[in-house]
Amino acid sequence: MLFFHDDRHRLHFPQAELDGGQFVTPYERPSRVEYVLRRLQETGMRAAAPGALDMGPVRAVHAPDYLEFLATCWADWVASGARGEIIATSFPVRRMRQKPPRNIDGKVGYYSLAAETAITAGTWEAAQASCALAQSAQRAVAAGERAAFALCRPPGHHAASDLFGGYCFLNNAAVAAQMFRDDGAGRVAVLDIDFHHGNGTQDIFHRRGDVFFASIHGAPEDAFPYFLGYADETGEGAGEGANLNLPLPPGTPFGPWAEALDAALAAIRDFGAEALVVSLGTDAFKDDPISFFKLESADFAEAGRRIAGAGLPTVFVMEGGYAIEAVGINAVNVLQGFEEAAA
Amino acid sequence: MLFFHDDRHRLHFPQAELDGGQFVTPYERPSRVEYVLRRLQETGMRAAAPGALDMGPVRAVHAPDYLEFLATCWADWVASGARGEIIATSFPVRRMRQKPPRNIDGKVGYYSLAAETAITAGTWEAAQASCALAQSAQRAVAAGERAAFALCRPPGHHAASDLFGGYCFLNNAAVAAQMFRDDGAGRVAVLDIDFHHGNGTQDIFHRRGDVFFASIHGAPEDAFPYFLGYADETGEGAGEGANLNLPLPPGTPFGPWAEALDAALAAIRDFGAEALVVSLGTDAFKDDPISFFKLESADFAEAGRRIAGAGLPTVFVMEGGYAIEAVGINAVNVLQGFEEAAA
Ligand SMILES: [Zn+2]
Ligand SMILES: [Zn+2]
Repeated sequence: MLFFHDDRHRLHFPQAELDGGQFVTPYERPSRVEYVLRRLQETGMRAAAPGALDMGPVRAVHAPDYLEFLATCWADWVASGARGEIIATSFPVRRMRQKPPRNIDGKVGYYSLAAETAITAGTWEAAQASCALAQSAQRAVAAGERAAFALCRPPGHHAASDLFGGYCFLNNAAVAAQMFRDDGAGRVAVLDIDFHHGNGTQDIFHRRGDVFFASIHGAPEDAFPYFLGYADETGEGAGEGANLNLPLPPGTPFGPWAEALDAALAAIRDFGAEALVVSLGTDAFKDDPISFFKLESADFAEAGRRIAGAGLPTVFVMEGGYAIEAVGINAVNVLQGFEEAAA
Repeated sequence: MLFFHDDRHRLHFPQAELDGGQFVTPYERPSRVEYVLRRLQETGMRAAAPGALDMGPVRAVHAPDYLEFLATCWADWVASGARGEIIATSFPVRRMRQKPPRNIDGKVGYYSLAAETAITAGTWEAAQASCALAQSAQRAVAAGERAAFALCRPPGHHAASDLFGGYCFLNNAAVAAQMFRDDGAGRVAVLDIDFHHGNGTQDIFHRRGDVFFASIHGAPEDAFPYFLGYADETGEGAGEGANLNLPLPPGTPFGPWAEALDAALAAIRDFGAEALVVSLGTDAFKDDPISFFKLESADFAEAGRRIAGAGLPTVFVMEGGYAIEAVGINAVNVLQGFEEAAA
């Protein structure tokens, strides 16, 4: 399978993540990519050079003021005298005004859904480079490849139209889905197999009937992002029926997880999708440090085989996965399983 | 003037506050109380023993699930294996579900509006003791004192019915106002002269016509809490017209600040308040490290004189003020100015 990567992901490496009331080394760290890259090379996957970022599809799924914020926040933060990395502290929650303030500290909170995700000097460049990988993979598939893999970092599925958090800034999967639509696919599906609910992707397409979103994830009662991902979120307006959440409880092994996967794939078939974007997180793995599913490494290959069964042009976009040394094997197992079944 | 204090405020002393992307010693720290206490003693104010907390009026202004959370969160947090103090990281912002999750990390985010405020083992006991001081001051005034001062710590005015943050957990001023109502006052006013908007107090009374809320504060475009405190927030439903926000820009000196105070006092008179609760923060002081007004110490005495001019039974409740060594002089200057004018 063709894959795309970009070393500029290293430009995003916050010193700290707020976790359990303490600063810890971020779970989402550059070495994740190194392990995946090594495994891609070991298994003979074909690297291809990514193209430049096209802001058109990015602007189609993100708010203009949010993109402006991402592009300017570091300079504003430094100019304000703040000495640490950008971390949001003040949030416009229940009954508060949804209006971006002028103050950069307030602005950071306005555009954030979580305080664990820091922004650094290189974050915006890394996020753009990451998104360009998803675009490159989509272009390869649109040009005739059966599938392609974007080794995105930072990931994207928690980023909403105007919110960063959960290690995400630009929603790479949503951008790729949008590009399939722009290329003429009438209906597109995003399948999110990351352990965490893809709240950002759901939010971006929640009122749209042209993009189906299906997610298999840790139940929001028990898992980040906590405030989206319930089964009763089925879309709204034109998007009613085009959202399928399959939350699963702590300890879920491959059996029920695979049943949820089959249900998601059946729904995507019924929807009539002409192209598929897979948010490929590997944090459903049993040893993931911040998740609670129990998939084995071999299960990821079987997941890939089943995804191939949908018979759709498929873009795989890297999302989470924090059992660092296993991330490469698990992610590439999905791709290999897909290739076996698609061959 | 009679005043109430309780050493149990020391039970709340987080090690760290998230500020500018770094952990710093909290601005809201125990020594603030020591400076006020010393100044109260130097100026011959009369200490009185506080009574026990009456949960009735607390329940009247806070949601039952929020109070349950405050009472149980530390045990749940420790049981979850978290090693630091409680700091919220995940927030139910725009378009997310307003439903408390089961997971304690998620629950902390659900009940929080900001990540700068940590909860420790002793926070709940300190917050209750602090609130009991506001109740004691209210009882003294209800029993015939012209005025009384509650040296509350932690402060309260940022705490909404179901949200902590901004160093606040229980809304002491709202509880005192509620008690005046319960004692038979038809109409009560809360005047908030803390530098920061009293978003919690506004929120609690926003749909009520029996409690007027007036606040003089740093404009929300530029100052915490950023997402409430605009001039166009005038109350809703039965509360329409019973909320007066007087936001002022960076650098505001006493002249325009005092004009806003006079406008607030005129509105309180027009409202027909029979009792007054003053949220007494001193962070409008020129040397406050996290604020941007330019009041001199002598100006606080003049503010006290003008407040006395309202001629109302008055409970002063301590809120913020972070120029630690000046907090005592400035807070007690308000009380002394009030006493001079009321004599
Ligand atoms: Zn994840
Ligand atoms: Zn304040």
